Amino acid sequence: MSSFAIGVDLGGTNLRVAAIDDSGSTLEIISTLANIGRGREQVIEEIAAATLGLAGKFRASHRLLGIGVGIPGIIDLASGTVCSAANLPGWTDYPVRKHLEAKLGAAVILENDANCAALGEKWVGAGRHADDLCMLTLGTGVGGAFVFHGLPWHGTIGMAGELGHLTVFPEGRACACGNRGCLEQYASATAIQNAALEAIAGGRAANLRRAQKPGERISARTVFQCALEGDPVARQIFDDAGRALGIVLANLINALNLSVYVVGGGLSQAWQIFSPALFQELRQRSIVFCASEAAVAGRPRTLVTPALLRENSGLIGAARLPMIMAAPRDARPLAV
Amino acid sequence: MSSFAIGVDLGGTNLRVAAIDDSGSTLEIISTLANIGRGREQVIEEIAAATLGLAGKFRASHRLLGIGVGIPGIIDLASGTVCSAANLPGWTDYPVRKHLEAKLGAAVILENDANCAALGEKWVGAGRHADDLCMLTLGTGVGGAFVFHGLPWHGTIGMAGELGHLTVFPEGRACACGNRGCLEQYASATAIQNAALEAIAGGRAANLRRAQKPGERISARTVFQCALEGDPVARQIFDDAGRALGIVLANLINALNLSVYVVGGGLSQAWQIFSPALFQELRQRSIVFCASEAAVAGRPRTLVTPALLRENSGLIGAARLPMIMAAPRDARPLAV
Repeated sequence: MSSFAIGVDLGGTNLRVAAIDDSGSTLEIISTLANIGRGREQVIEEIAAATLGLAGKFRASHRLLGIGVGIPGIIDLASGTVCSAANLPGWTDYPVRKHLEAKLGAAVILENDANCAALGEKWVGAGRHADDLCMLTLGTGVGGAFVFHGLPWHGTIGMAGELGHLTVFPEGRACACGNRGCLEQYASATAIQNAALEAIAGGRAANLRRAQKPGERISARTVFQCALEGDPVARQIFDDAGRALGIVLANLINALNLSVYVVGGGLSQAWQIFSPALFQELRQRSIVFCASEAAVAGRPRTLVTPALLRENSGLIGAARLPMIMAAPRDARPLAV
Repeated sequence: MSSFAIGVDLGGTNLRVAAIDDSGSTLEIISTLANIGRGREQVIEEIAAATLGLAGKFRASHRLLGIGVGIPGIIDLASGTVCSAANLPGWTDYPVRKHLEAKLGAAVILENDANCAALGEKWVGAGRHADDLCMLTLGTGVGGAFVFHGLPWHGTIGMAGELGHLTVFPEGRACACGNRGCLEQYASATAIQNAALEAIAGGRAANLRRAQKPGERISARTVFQCALEGDPVARQIFDDAGRALGIVLANLINALNLSVYVVGGGLSQAWQIFSPALFQELRQRSIVFCASEAAVAGRPRTLVTPALLRENSGLIGAARLPMIMAAPRDARPLAV
């Protein structure tokens, strides 16, 4: 009898719950709106219902290994509490694990969503042949995570992976975190949007202005479309993003010499547009990247690549949790 | 019967061999000039003689655990060969372990010197209460190393810890590595010296010019003395170094959230002069450092500190190697 686990990917917008088998194949995904506004109890209720539904459906043919939940915030892993979560208003200090376990009658493993995405890519994605990887997630903001020896790296107070706040340009754009020149100010969807709006306001971007829908702020996706069509202003905006990413990746490669660096998140769909500038920085700034490129055949190289699992990295990684991590205490059988 | 190990710290200038007991206390240190110019066979001969001498002296009272050797270069750990070592001319591709083991009749563990220094600080220095640490070594150049879960982190091709080549200022000073704005161009003894020479040449530094010995280039140590005496140009040079270090440390803290970051090497003796600028950058640029400072009492903080073992970090760390690493193959008893 093969086995499976349930993964939960809770975001500010979407809630997705999946049954994933022990080879990483997706048995089924339930996708719904998170509707965070309805209150956290209602969201927990919905996670539990989907989990119980999937567990019941596949338990006849598969052994259930456990339940992993990815949350977009800082988690106190010992207590299973959300410490802070910008996109989940009202969830600060909420003991998610306790409430979810009460509904399920089973142990649950919580994890930060960026760590889940990195675990997913490590398991069956871009890092499937590696023990260690670093993942950058380019979305509204920029997140990050490390997997060392196959396990997520949390850091001393659980805040490892704040890669969106690495300083790229010490005198650069102001960031809400209080710093200047953070990666997030150059390589997030918000940064792309802001750069486009600035170019439009400055009268330097006729194509972007035309592409902007009446009454709406231009989106990163539209800037990407313009770049694909060859608009030089849009291309420059993505070049700048690629350059900032390249500087950060050069530093992470020189520091840690991991074998795989994965770029995920919605903005990674623009990889073809921004990656040339990224690799140009790597070749100029990372002696370790260059040594790795020059290494003789058969020796490990440094792989810098877009995520393979796209929007499913975090969902699949959440299901991976019960396969590699001990449940925080004695797991009980799922009461279905 | 307590036990001990032999540690060897081979530098471009000095060769030091020590017997260190299993609590990290130094039983004896033999210090000599490395005299690299005499040829590598002669140096290996000298290492072996000192090792056999110390092993013979303490084996009556202590059990010998093994021999660890720190080398300033990139080591192929599997073969025990020096791949490259800028300060050991003629040692490229030299199978150090094979030759040393032949002389000793015992297994030897080789390691990069920066990793040894980090291991020493982890064992009985600034990181003795931590599992993980990052160490920056400020000398002629800038080196670095990570210890994760008590063990050195080598990276995929053994090049982890190239922290001297992290980009601080993307358009900054040119570095011999081909990059611009590397940390080493701001926070090494060479960088301090160059900045002082530039200030003297520019006529902006009467005190530095006076402190420079006739016919000699001013040294980083003399610039440090001038800074201690309040010279504003010298202080500015160290402020710039502290600022560059702070930017790099802020990035390493935001990325990895380790509990201890150690600054060692000769230039770390100027800690009191450059650390205020360093901490100012940390507080502006690292949300993880700030969160850690704000953490409630009893929770782990982020410690950023000068090395405690000073010039002995690497020597003590080399002796630690046989206590924590398996010898590459069956160790034979030392033939003394």
